[in-house]
Amino acid sequence: MTDLLPVTFADVTAAAARIAPFVHRTPVLTSQRLNALFGAEIFFKCENLQRIGAFKARGAHNAVFALESHATAHGVVTHSSGNHAAALSLAARNRGVPAFIVMPSNAPKAKVESVQRLGGQISYCEPTTPAREAAAAALVRERGARLVHPYDDPLVIAGQGTAALEFLTEVPNLDALIAPVGGGGLMSGTAVAARGLGRPIQLWATEPQQANDAWRSWRGGVLTVGDPPDTIADGLRTTLGGNGFTILRALLDDFATVSEASIVAAMRLVWEVMKIVIEPSSAVPVAALLDQALDVRGKRIGVILTGGNVDLDLLPWQPRGA
Amino acid sequence: MTDLLPVTFADVTAAAARIAPFVHRTPVLTSQRLNALFGAEIFFKCENLQRIGAFKARGAHNAVFALESHATAHGVVTHSSGNHAAALSLAARNRGVPAFIVMPSNAPKAKVESVQRLGGQISYCEPTTPAREAAAAALVRERGARLVHPYDDPLVIAGQGTAALEFLTEVPNLDALIAPVGGGGLMSGTAVAARGLGRPIQLWATEPQQANDAWRSWRGGVLTVGDPPDTIADGLRTTLGGNGFTILRALLDDFATVSEASIVAAMRLVWEVMKIVIEPSSAVPVAALLDQALDVRGKRIGVILTGGNVDLDLLPWQPRGA
Repeated sequence: MTDLLPVTFADVTAAAARIAPFVHRTPVLTSQRLNALFGAEIFFKCENLQRIGAFKARGAHNAVFALESHATAHGVVTHSSGNHAAALSLAARNRGVPAFIVMPSNAPKAKVESVQRLGGQISYCEPTTPAREAAAAALVRERGARLVHPYDDPLVIAGQGTAALEFLTEVPNLDALIAPVGGGGLMSGTAVAARGLGRPIQLWATEPQQANDAWRSWRGGVLTVGDPPDTIADGLRTTLGGNGFTILRALLDDFATVSEASIVAAMRLVWEVMKIVIEPSSAVPVAALLDQALDVRGKRIGVILTGGNVDLDLLPWQPRGA
Repeated sequence: MTDLLPVTFADVTAAAARIAPFVHRTPVLTSQRLNALFGAEIFFKCENLQRIGAFKARGAHNAVFALESHATAHGVVTHSSGNHAAALSLAARNRGVPAFIVMPSNAPKAKVESVQRLGGQISYCEPTTPAREAAAAALVRERGARLVHPYDDPLVIAGQGTAALEFLTEVPNLDALIAPVGGGGLMSGTAVAARGLGRPIQLWATEPQQANDAWRSWRGGVLTVGDPPDTIADGLRTTLGGNGFTILRALLDDFATVSEASIVAAMRLVWEVMKIVIEPSSAVPVAALLDQALDVRGKRIGVILTGGNVDLDLLPWQPRGA
């Protein structure tokens, strides 16, 4: 079913074997309290507990370790101010090659420190997409470094799909799987993995209403790329990639979008009830459950919690007593 | 080695079988970043991810399910404003008997709601130890309910020991195991479980300096009970029980105490690096690592993270930028 797509099930299983030494097999958690609240049996795959605090460790390691030695001899490069930058830095360190990371001059200090701690070499640029792409292209040209795109590289998509592969192996009889969509790397890898396992399962994407380019592209059948969207879910401030679009059009069953307020409420709910730190992007599928935007009642539902990198000094909720 | 103590290894293994249907087998997490920071290989047993958000679910279920039907026919009772109250409410609900919970009139709203949600029947009393004990005794007398002491009941101690049993089965070759001490239920159950497995392992207790009654008792050889101590680690604001004292005197190898500031720093560190929510009590052993108060270098160390019940509106750190 996935053989004609840019990424196949065999790519995902190859990725799983390749990255196993470098990533955590993350736990699946459940909560009777949330089950009662949502009227469904919910299983949470905790990629916030993944190395570097996000599923991005999977795709970056697959991309870096799948390449021939000559292709990575001069290092790897990406432009990202987020979790992919840290993930690529870690993967390059594990392979013993340099990572060149283009970051906007206004990148948050915590993210700069994270890349530095992992040995990534940072180049700053103006905070615009053309400036970032130009700076990365210059590093490819001048250093001979290999570009690893944060979400549309087929190796990255295959790597992200390993989270669903683990998840569905551990909890085999799910009725549906829900994940968020930013650039589409996770959701499309998830879809390829789930369809490849050959068991019937609904595949549901979720996205912030304020960043609904993937939803519009999926509904309309035309990849609709605009300016980077604005949402509290900072991991989803990217637009859908071409490979992700192709895969999601072919394999997705449903798609819900959620408000910013629901994202914050869902994030707080998970912290309070499940005792885990998730970033706003992770809360997007939970927000869809809170909003009853997907038909989950009585079903066994898998949710991928994507990451936990937040600034503890900038929590998005107001004290309830205030 | 544990045969002459108030709780034996056989009690712990019996508890593990008894409570298995009702508690989570909690994950063990690791962090390369924390390993590098502490110069040791640290394994974290995440009882903050346990049902009701704390290890207390173990002891309460063991106590409630070990009793004969006639002993629990009229319900169970305890006086607690903390995690044991929620744990006993859940265990009683699972057994189908009422739970009577004596809470001080000034108990935090979140804890009252937690007990109510789990079906516990709350009686309020003046916020003093004599008033709480008198109210609980009255419920025993009038209702025929069975008292389940929060930490010194041998069945509770045996139940708490199941966390270490799981932990040491999953990670068998630890050099040392560290946990916090409040009333001593967890640490003494942990010690009985670890010694019973018969492998050499150091057992290290930790306590806030401001609540060091167990440390003083252990060092001095005399159970030293004073007023309930004051510390940010609200789960440890109890004094050591008699059974806990006996067990810790017999089995403990070392004992570190830590400052309030170190507890807050350790709590924040775990949230940031590990992406899990822990309460201040859980941070006490991590604070001992931060302070280099225990000789961990180059060793394989197990840490029991005890709970994750915190008020997200009252976080104990100041914003770093402020």
